[in-house]
Amino acid sequence: MAIELKNLTKRADDYSQWYNELVVKADLAEQSAVRGCMVIKPYGYAIWEKMQRQLDDMFKATGVQNAYFPLLIPKSFLSREAEHVEGFAKECAVVTHHRLMNDPGGKGVVVDPTARLEEELIIRPTSETIIWNTYRNWISSYRDLPLLCNQWCNVMRWEMRTRMFLRTAEFLWQEGHTAHATRDEAQAKAIEMLNVYGDFAEKYMALPVVKGIKTANERFAGALETYTIEAMMQDGKALQSGTSHFLGQNFAKAFDVKFINKENQLEYVWATSWGVSTRLMGALIMTHSDDNGLVLPPHLAPIQVVIVPIYKNAEQLTEIDAVVEPIVAKLRDLGVSVKYDNADNKRPGFKFADYELKGVPVRLVLGPRDIQNGTVEVMRRDTLEKHSAQLQGIEEYVKNLLEDIQQGIYDKALKLRESMTFKVDTWEQFQEQIEKGGFLLAHWDGTTETEEKIKELTKATIRCIPMDGDDEPGKCILTGKPSARRVIFARNY
Amino acid sequence: MAIELKNLTKRADDYSQWYNELVVKADLAEQSAVRGCMVIKPYGYAIWEKMQRQLDDMFKATGVQNAYFPLLIPKSFLSREAEHVEGFAKECAVVTHHRLMNDPGGKGVVVDPTARLEEELIIRPTSETIIWNTYRNWISSYRDLPLLCNQWCNVMRWEMRTRMFLRTAEFLWQEGHTAHATRDEAQAKAIEMLNVYGDFAEKYMALPVVKGIKTANERFAGALETYTIEAMMQDGKALQSGTSHFLGQNFAKAFDVKFINKENQLEYVWATSWGVSTRLMGALIMTHSDDNGLVLPPHLAPIQVVIVPIYKNAEQLTEIDAVVEPIVAKLRDLGVSVKYDNADNKRPGFKFADYELKGVPVRLVLGPRDIQNGTVEVMRRDTLEKHSAQLQGIEEYVKNLLEDIQQGIYDKALKLRESMTFKVDTWEQFQEQIEKGGFLLAHWDGTTETEEKIKELTKATIRCIPMDGDDEPGKCILTGKPSARRVIFARNY
Repeated sequence: MAIELKNLTKRADDYSQWYNELVVKADLAEQSAVRGCMVIKPYGYAIWEKMQRQLDDMFKATGVQNAYFPLLIPKSFLSREAEHVEGFAKECAVVTHHRLMNDPGGKGVVVDPTARLEEELIIRPTSETIIWNTYRNWISSYRDLPLLCNQWCNVMRWEMRTRMFLRTAEFLWQEGHTAHATRDEAQAKAIEMLNVYGDFAEKYMALPVVKGIKTANERFAGALETYTIEAMMQDGKALQSGTSHFLGQNFAKAFDVKFINKENQLEYVWATSWGVSTRLMGALIMTHSDDNGLVLPPHLAPIQVVIVPIYKNAEQLTEIDAVVEPIVAKLRDLGVSVKYDNADNKRPGFKFADYELKGVPVRLVLGPRDIQNGTVEVMRRDTLEKHSAQLQGIEEYVKNLLEDIQQGIYDKALKLRESMTFKVDTWEQFQEQIEKGGFLLAHWDGTTETEEKIKELTKATIRCIPMDGDDEPGKCILTGKPSARRVIFARNY
Repeated sequence: MAIELKNLTKRADDYSQWYNELVVKADLAEQSAVRGCMVIKPYGYAIWEKMQRQLDDMFKATGVQNAYFPLLIPKSFLSREAEHVEGFAKECAVVTHHRLMNDPGGKGVVVDPTARLEEELIIRPTSETIIWNTYRNWISSYRDLPLLCNQWCNVMRWEMRTRMFLRTAEFLWQEGHTAHATRDEAQAKAIEMLNVYGDFAEKYMALPVVKGIKTANERFAGALETYTIEAMMQDGKALQSGTSHFLGQNFAKAFDVKFINKENQLEYVWATSWGVSTRLMGALIMTHSDDNGLVLPPHLAPIQVVIVPIYKNAEQLTEIDAVVEPIVAKLRDLGVSVKYDNADNKRPGFKFADYELKGVPVRLVLGPRDIQNGTVEVMRRDTLEKHSAQLQGIEEYVKNLLEDIQQGIYDKALKLRESMTFKVDTWEQFQEQIEKGGFLLAHWDGTTETEEKIKELTKATIRCIPMDGDDEPGKCILTGKPSARRVIFARNY
């Protein structure tokens, strides 16, 4: 029983190892035979599907439509936008041939050297180039704008060091690409989508985030402005959880996308792009989970409630089955996803440990004596607290409890973040605190040079310039030069 | 007005050209900058999303779970299953390098020759190999079975001649891969999934299909049996719309996937795989549409009802808006997707033509006189018939009408198929009829040799051996050798 669970490394012993083990032991994902690429297992994928469904609804509510653009991008497209190629084009999967043939030596198959492509094709690391090449034919007048497209797809970046969900060569994501008639409208859209990400993170993932602006150094390659949501993991490190870019007219210029405006003048189109990926799974896991396994927010848990019967013989099980059946039906009517696990080949203790490991938010345990008393044992996964509740009205009770848990884990994560966010005013303090983790609110002189020097000295990067931060004149933590406001420094995933 | 529509080629003049134009003019898809790859535009993608959602629900109702496996497959995997490599591995996209670098000559980027992969990777043409390589670690006991996974993803086959939706280098699909403890269970699962496809085609796509078994020659590479649903297009050609394969133990043997059965013996696992793709979009378009554009089945139409106001001034429009608003709300409550198009920058005639082109099943037109009379003009897209209906209760009326249309276009397609299905008993008849199109029910001696000879002579292939066909001894249409039952011959897409 619970052999796997016993072996889960504790967070305090090795947070990184705990994460890697948990991803595998909770059946979320595993390494594949292809370097840096993971297999997302059914339980992990079920969580991702819930995220997708919710985000997709939220995007559509803002007028966004889904579409699909090609996986492969002609190599020459990548060099059209000068900054973009610098930031993206280098580490990527390159398709050079389109045919295999039987090995003349009789050993399997080899690449057919005669089937070389005239121009190499790149597996998309992101799709601005191919999409803006397409938009050229879709946009000619202000009447064609705004154009609001999103795609759910796989992308590939040949990362050297990979970690499941956090950084993988292939990952799943959505990428929104919008086209606008004015600068203001595009900028507003970039912020609108950042707010969608923020709402999603807080209401569904129970993940408190700081919304902010990236420094020039951390900007998306080709963007004029990158907005971000930054979250804090339990080890005090930051995790960039979603970004939204105001691209100005850079891609329109690179791909010659112009429109006739209302004043009958030809103008380049304004752009945004924005994305979140399976990296959110990493954020979800690392924010809430504990030494017993996953803790999932009820709003994204594939199974919200599990019911486990305790019985000594078939007769008792039949009795319990009869009581549970209408409860399951009523919970489903209330929109609660519930599993009744009356499988006979596993002992209750094994089931308990397994559902704890998998982060099921609420567990109900029911035996013959409970039925006599009209009660049921309730355990909430976030606190591991057990208590007894009345069977009568248990469905509404559970529904409310799920909301309590959702709020509870959000509050807990927020409290942790607050307890690990520090205003730091001297370089000594900075160096000392960064070793302990957390968000450091400090002044910075606004130069890339200083930013990089601080990174070199402390491994801390500027996560963002908070959008709701106050103007507060001060002096740069490193150089002492003047600064208008504090920024957030942290080590990060 | 309706300039594009006027230019739509008529089916009778050039069916193939009509299809190609319709795909583009109805905003479903277009060619991309990458050979053989298409862009699926928002309107086309919205139809695909409705198909996905429905199929996904139907899969899950059979116990299937979604997962995600890598895009790239090590080249050596493809040669593990001997037949599979013959059927699949040849025309595919091969990744050989993982880095670009700045062109030393200063012209954009070039492939970095030092970043050559040790083993080439293939963009999946289908995923049996990588999935069975993964299943080896997931399955050790009969308790791990059945394993029922599906993935929604992109795949790539380097087709020489491509047509949008029907045959593209990259396409979207789902591929289910199941693992079972017994031969019977696997075979039953393959047939169960074929029936899911058949139900989906008939109830949602309004597409009558023949369920059947493929001949050895037309089988999936590596399968023991391939089941298929075959549909007839309006030009009398067949379109294979979905296949389900009983794979026996071939992939389990190739990837060494064994389990301990209930008798404590080690045994190879039994497998199925099954898939439908964006090719279904082609079937949908070609089955129902007409010379005025798309005809969409209400169950899959992104917009089921469009309401167009007719007015001379702002006052009249305000009056119509007030009447339409509660109708829109009630239709939505009834689960009907409705668009009220009161945009001022397009004339009603343009709107009519556009929604006809896009196949919106029901159009309501409303002017001041209609409001006075308490009536509304209703047009159904399938028959283009217009009639007047009472405004009172129009929501329920429309909801029922949508079901009538759904049934109507199914019946029409079935009638066409029946009128173009022929029992053929002489080789002369066969040769004559195949030129006119349709399904030819004829006897065949069961040999691949004869099948290929007939294909060579007439371009007709055996679409399937119908599963609900009667045993009826006869003589092969070409060789005169004995045959146990008729098979379906047709030319096909």
